[in-house]
Amino acid sequence: MTTEQLEFQIRKKKSFLCIGLDVDLNKIPKHLLKEEDPIFSFNKAIIDATHHLCVAYKPNTAFYEAYGIKGWKSLEKTINYLNDKYPDIFTIADAKRGDIGNTSTMYAKAFFEDLAFDAVTVAPYMGKDSVEPFLAFKDKHTIMLALTSNEGAFDFQTKKVEGKELYKQVLNTSKSWENSKNLMYVVGATKAEYFAEIRKIIPTSFLLVPGVGAQGGNLQDVCKYGLSENIGLLINSSRGIIYASKNEHFANEAAKKALQLQQQMENFLIQ
Amino acid sequence: MTTEQLEFQIRKKKSFLCIGLDVDLNKIPKHLLKEEDPIFSFNKAIIDATHHLCVAYKPNTAFYEAYGIKGWKSLEKTINYLNDKYPDIFTIADAKRGDIGNTSTMYAKAFFEDLAFDAVTVAPYMGKDSVEPFLAFKDKHTIMLALTSNEGAFDFQTKKVEGKELYKQVLNTSKSWENSKNLMYVVGATKAEYFAEIRKIIPTSFLLVPGVGAQGGNLQDVCKYGLSENIGLLINSSRGIIYASKNEHFANEAAKKALQLQQQMENFLIQ
Repeated sequence: MTTEQLEFQIRKKKSFLCIGLDVDLNKIPKHLLKEEDPIFSFNKAIIDATHHLCVAYKPNTAFYEAYGIKGWKSLEKTINYLNDKYPDIFTIADAKRGDIGNTSTMYAKAFFEDLAFDAVTVAPYMGKDSVEPFLAFKDKHTIMLALTSNEGAFDFQTKKVEGKELYKQVLNTSKSWENSKNLMYVVGATKAEYFAEIRKIIPTSFLLVPGVGAQGGNLQDVCKYGLSENIGLLINSSRGIIYASKNEHFANEAAKKALQLQQQMENFLIQ
Repeated sequence: MTTEQLEFQIRKKKSFLCIGLDVDLNKIPKHLLKEEDPIFSFNKAIIDATHHLCVAYKPNTAFYEAYGIKGWKSLEKTINYLNDKYPDIFTIADAKRGDIGNTSTMYAKAFFEDLAFDAVTVAPYMGKDSVEPFLAFKDKHTIMLALTSNEGAFDFQTKKVEGKELYKQVLNTSKSWENSKNLMYVVGATKAEYFAEIRKIIPTSFLLVPGVGAQGGNLQDVCKYGLSENIGLLINSSRGIIYASKNEHFANEAAKKALQLQQQMENFLIQ
């Protein structure tokens, strides 16, 4: 999917919501545990109930890998289901990968070819040649960590490097990488005041924004400083939506939470 | 395995060699492609031929993920084979993971519990709360990227942060994290002159050193500046050993390459 197609979907659905599929077997409704593949059954129900309210889904690979081969199968079934049934949905493997060149190529193949995701998240620490192998894939998107939503973001990301915060150096430096048009960035919602600064460096790049909801981020502030002429935002909510209820109506309850966010987003798009 | 047990194995085998199992189906001997699980067959042959010459194996997860569920199965069979047949071997999942706290816990479970590796590599960009969930596992080891062996290391890692290079800040900061005694660090062999500086910050921590061989690093320089009183080095070689030959004697040829490195290491241990 191209960024233009993503923008088109956002305007059509009046939503720039991404739903995080971080599925923990301890947190899903108990009746699903009897199913052959509880994680996929959960995802399928959530997706069927919410696909019209969001433009993207983002399974976090950790939650699948923790269950080994079974988990990897659930991940594969989830992405295949999305690609088959809802091809207009933007799919993100939240994997935060990154390694030397030939190894990054293998990761890129894993997520762009074998699993056919539209996008994958990567870490910037190893620099240019660890990210460019991902960028080489046409119409695929590489979402690099810039400023994350956790406490540890202040350990290194906000420290000054040659006069500028590390996350700003990451943004600046990455603009010169080959196929940098395929870059998007992770910027945490808990640091909304940083968005204005970030938009000076990357005025129109799409930002994947975690931290709204469970982590305390404020949607209004993020939109105020982060929305660009081509929208340029994907707001992620995981736990706040998918774990809205543990009873058998969990998918409907999740849809209600997604609808609330979609309606707020619609307002920000109209303004 | 504890670090004391690892040191004991190194002294017993007179080797601090780690063999990287980065298995690419395009590079292994063609006759193996007929096997049911070519990657595992390759790994098993390499392990059986080299286990007495090294103290650690390091499968890079990218090379398994690229083959989807099949690849994950090969990885599982490889770690199970190592744990069953060679329990004195130190096993490293080269995964370079890192995410917010609850997600890092899931990654730690994936590699320390589900797959039962002794160690996993992680990226430092997201800071303390992205790494501490790994450190919480007793007798397991978290190997954090400090200074990597690739060109992109100069993009951010060697840039000055508040007067000191970022990789030094990473080393310094991480010493204060909970259970930091379970930390080891990745330091690339291609930057041997940095080892003296690094040893001032972490005098005895184990360093996993990629880049000897195919990437051009020099073993003598690494040992000169990097060896500590408890040895503190694991030198990794991947392609230089496992792809020594493509014929049916590939495992013996790999063992010859491993023996060369082991003999050099034995000399450095005696000095």
